[in-house]
Amino acid sequence: MSGDHGPHIIVPAALKVLSENEDLQVIFVGDEAVLNQELGHQPPKVIQRISITHATQRVEMDDPPSRALRNKRDSSMRIAINLVKEGKADACVSAGNTGALMATARYVLKTLPGIDRPAIITALPNMQGTSTHVLDLGANIDSTPEQLFQFAVMGSVLTQAVDNLPNPRIGLLNIGQEEIKGNERVKEAAKLISSSSNINYIGFVEGDDIYKGIVDVVVCDGFVGNVALKTTEGVAKMISHYVKQSFTKNWLTRLAAIVSLPILNNLRQKIDPRRYNGASLLGLRGIVIKSHGSADILSFSHAIKEALIEVQKNVPSQIKQQLGILLSERRRIE
Amino acid sequence: MSGDHGPHIIVPAALKVLSENEDLQVIFVGDEAVLNQELGHQPPKVIQRISITHATQRVEMDDPPSRALRNKRDSSMRIAINLVKEGKADACVSAGNTGALMATARYVLKTLPGIDRPAIITALPNMQGTSTHVLDLGANIDSTPEQLFQFAVMGSVLTQAVDNLPNPRIGLLNIGQEEIKGNERVKEAAKLISSSSNINYIGFVEGDDIYKGIVDVVVCDGFVGNVALKTTEGVAKMISHYVKQSFTKNWLTRLAAIVSLPILNNLRQKIDPRRYNGASLLGLRGIVIKSHGSADILSFSHAIKEALIEVQKNVPSQIKQQLGILLSERRRIE
Repeated sequence: MSGDHGPHIIVPAALKVLSENEDLQVIFVGDEAVLNQELGHQPPKVIQRISITHATQRVEMDDPPSRALRNKRDSSMRIAINLVKEGKADACVSAGNTGALMATARYVLKTLPGIDRPAIITALPNMQGTSTHVLDLGANIDSTPEQLFQFAVMGSVLTQAVDNLPNPRIGLLNIGQEEIKGNERVKEAAKLISSSSNINYIGFVEGDDIYKGIVDVVVCDGFVGNVALKTTEGVAKMISHYVKQSFTKNWLTRLAAIVSLPILNNLRQKIDPRRYNGASLLGLRGIVIKSHGSADILSFSHAIKEALIEVQKNVPSQIKQQLGILLSERRRIE
Repeated sequence: MSGDHGPHIIVPAALKVLSENEDLQVIFVGDEAVLNQELGHQPPKVIQRISITHATQRVEMDDPPSRALRNKRDSSMRIAINLVKEGKADACVSAGNTGALMATARYVLKTLPGIDRPAIITALPNMQGTSTHVLDLGANIDSTPEQLFQFAVMGSVLTQAVDNLPNPRIGLLNIGQEEIKGNERVKEAAKLISSSSNINYIGFVEGDDIYKGIVDVVVCDGFVGNVALKTTEGVAKMISHYVKQSFTKNWLTRLAAIVSLPILNNLRQKIDPRRYNGASLLGLRGIVIKSHGSADILSFSHAIKEALIEVQKNVPSQIKQQLGILLSERRRIE
């Protein structure tokens, strides 16, 4: 029910993914009347794979997480996460309020053993035409070295599963300034990560390395990761703004725009943020995917596909297993 | 002598600015023979405004700051900063090693009264066609609220001077996540900055706001600022890479590129990083400007112009004065 556009986007996006994946079943959680209207008439082979669970409340985009937790126990968000907890759903996908989603998911599902706090991870495009996963994107601030180590394990497992990479390259975000070369937390985290078997740690990386494709996972504190993500959005929007402005200046530039349109569209496809929609809330005892609030149908369908892959690969159980191995390995050494 | 290209770029850049500004005098510091060769024959009205101060050493791009400080006391960098200290130069402009430049400048010039540590500031383009100043970009990590307050004062004074803005809008970089809304240091800094008269504090901003043009100065810790700056470089390079790739795909796209070339050039000019070259080391008892190491002639000339403006407006003395007023105001309230 949430996000900027609600069921008007979410229902058609789910129908799109349903038509592409015959194994998929979707439970729509929200206002039954509204959902039924959006669903309209569907063929039997779709009908038998969808159901509706009614919810009387909705978490608003500006609800503080505390209000969502305490006063909205019958919200579509809470009920959807409850379904995951009860084993009635394999994953929850939401375009709603990030803070509320994180707080609710953490409260209902709890974190995996060995995980202090969940983290938010997403894929970003890079110059090699592949993608770079970055975490944490804002669920944690002032992360300890131990937490950064947990992010590295989670990022490595997710990237193995989602991108089918046997040995993803893990980088730790730092600054290159010779004088200081990063803070104590980052240096300490580097020791923990580099001494773990099964983590392909390649060392410190800088902000621009996210987009070079020289690492598969970039690990950082949530404050820093959030700034990097938002800065990226800002730069991309500014460039896109100036491209539009330059091509619509006068009739001559509009003519050039027509000639260049297929090229610009091709370019847009390569770095289309919609293709990268679907951030995972990692470290929970269940799969929760956060779509951008302003997602359109294509964009939201990517978030659902992300959930599908994580279910098929059973990401939470893999994280639990991998972390268990590394922690017992560390105890043996100590 | 330093930077990626040395005097081969720096000398012609200085000659360019000399020809545009009749008041400017330039002291070239470095290897006299090399500099004389680069200078070649110059007309008398240029000759009378240039001089050479010989230096036997050069700080390498990979020299640790400690080595530059201890073992390179006759480097072009050290001598240039000494000239500022001795009042023989009004400003020092360098394309050299940032860490070494910061350490040397701090050691030789010392910080202004009331300033704990210097900060690095630069202008970045925004959607409004103006520029946004961001500091600190990497000279400090784990900045205290008091230091963030000092950054706000310095950023405000510099932007008033350089952009001729009577009342620059100051934003404090934070993350928008409802659950946490930033760390304690940022919240504490917000209190200090918002209670200061003469600072036009507009509140928290996020990474994408740097490029919206809704603030004139963005204040942040150096770790975060450095990541934001490097991320920006990374995104811009990736987009530029894909633009080139798309337009050189086949003969049809190459044809479209010819038609679109003037438009793409116009676009590039608007967000040309060369126009924004010249970061200031603020908070010192003297003016030191850091150019990008890979700067070309146009780019380095912008760094020299930045120095010129800061000298004309006497930025260090204005920072000292402004900070003195605000600190005595705070003491009165306490």
